[in-house]
Amino acid sequence: MNVIPMYIIGERLNTSIPEISKAVKSRDKDKIIEEACAQVEAGEAALDINAGTHGRSEEDDVLWMMDVVTDGANVPLSLDSSNAGIIEVCLNQYKGPGTPIINSINGEAAKLEALTKLIKEHHCDVIALAMDERGIPDTAAARLEVITKVIDHLENEGIARSRIYADPLVIPVSTDTSKALCTIETLQGIKKDFPEVKTIVGLSNISFGLPKSKLLNRTFLAILIASGLDAAILDPTMPGIMPTVKAAEVLLNHDEFCTNYLSAYRSGKLEP
Amino acid sequence: MNVIPMYIIGERLNTSIPEISKAVKSRDKDKIIEEACAQVEAGEAALDINAGTHGRSEEDDVLWMMDVVTDGANVPLSLDSSNAGIIEVCLNQYKGPGTPIINSINGEAAKLEALTKLIKEHHCDVIALAMDERGIPDTAAARLEVITKVIDHLENEGIARSRIYADPLVIPVSTDTSKALCTIETLQGIKKDFPEVKTIVGLSNISFGLPKSKLLNRTFLAILIASGLDAAILDPTMPGIMPTVKAAEVLLNHDEFCTNYLSAYRSGKLEP
Repeated sequence: MNVIPMYIIGERLNTSIPEISKAVKSRDKDKIIEEACAQVEAGEAALDINAGTHGRSEEDDVLWMMDVVTDGANVPLSLDSSNAGIIEVCLNQYKGPGTPIINSINGEAAKLEALTKLIKEHHCDVIALAMDERGIPDTAAARLEVITKVIDHLENEGIARSRIYADPLVIPVSTDTSKALCTIETLQGIKKDFPEVKTIVGLSNISFGLPKSKLLNRTFLAILIASGLDAAILDPTMPGIMPTVKAAEVLLNHDEFCTNYLSAYRSGKLEP
Repeated sequence: MNVIPMYIIGERLNTSIPEISKAVKSRDKDKIIEEACAQVEAGEAALDINAGTHGRSEEDDVLWMMDVVTDGANVPLSLDSSNAGIIEVCLNQYKGPGTPIINSINGEAAKLEALTKLIKEHHCDVIALAMDERGIPDTAAARLEVITKVIDHLENEGIARSRIYADPLVIPVSTDTSKALCTIETLQGIKKDFPEVKTIVGLSNISFGLPKSKLLNRTFLAILIASGLDAAILDPTMPGIMPTVKAAEVLLNHDEFCTNYLSAYRSGKLEP
């Protein structure tokens, strides 16, 4: 058995969180490093950085975040921006470690072309969303069709399937209780059609608008891991999240002799 | 949408639990009623009763438990004994409400014959285990083969598939980390081959021998519900168990408009 543990990407370095926005605006290095290290410690995680809510100062702010996090935490970064130009600037200044992930591409033609060029130049990984210029499809079949086109395009450009993280997309279940099942079915379809492609979700969106978000997030995470999820963007410091990952890995036979589970237990990481 | 909520059967009225054994031996009605009502309240549950550890007094003890629980809790019972004669006596004296469940039959020929007769006479439901006189098969394919024979036998005797709860069997994952996956795959096979048959597990066995049993139990439960589980014998008073059921039902689109989830939240039943 040689199973790779779940790849966790910490979501908290995002200026949509008021305290992060404040820390970025005031150039509070200590706060950013503290948030970075807490996530790395909890989730053995890579880190997503996003200053998209800051409008005209996004480029300066995300570059500052990247510098601070690279110095303070030394883990691979997920470069998260809807602006391809900003992703390019970040890639040019990325100092490691490892390979950054572009977050994200989708079926939208112009952006797909621009970012494909960057993926090839910088040999980085990429998150590919199951949507295009028409928006997010309503059915699993339609999402699978969109992501298939993106994967085929990347493959034709010489980008290995193993460098792609396909995202079936998570929509708040409060908006329509069929939405979580649509994510699960899209995920299963991707794993069936493209076993070499990795799968990822942004987890926290599922519980938006409902009470007990931790309960919904951890329960959905268990179901998604059992459906073939390889990676997740989430808050690894949220109670119950990393313990659920460790438990699911035991139950799905990804953790022979329960080695990682027992090690997490001994170091207090199955609490609460 | 017309989805039946998970059918929960409380497991705690079992003399393998020392305080229950003591209460049964001393004919402590209050303690038994308290345990019965706590489970019914937590899980909207039916109740399993088992005095199998009491040897020669099993029949007297389980009949006494049945009387006490029927008076005190008024929910259907799962009659749990390895002795077909004791199940027959219980069925003869069963006063309701609803239909009792026989717990359990398996592929063992003599017992299967004796209990099939009782199921027909008493029009009750039955839990059918994926094992026979040779023991519990190691692979999902072999378990599915055994349970198929049992289902076919019952059907030939005129027992509707909808009255059968097929149990893929849960073995402690600490003994071999492939065992949970074997349960999951057997369950998926049963749902695929026999969509009208209900599925059930005895949950708690999964975590035997490992720390943080609540974490493993609730995570496995989420995965099993997503794999098609219809019913479970478990401790509904265990923290995190019933909240996980309610969350999974939302995520799998079994709870339109999140009605049951929000109602459980308002009555404090999503704690802790």
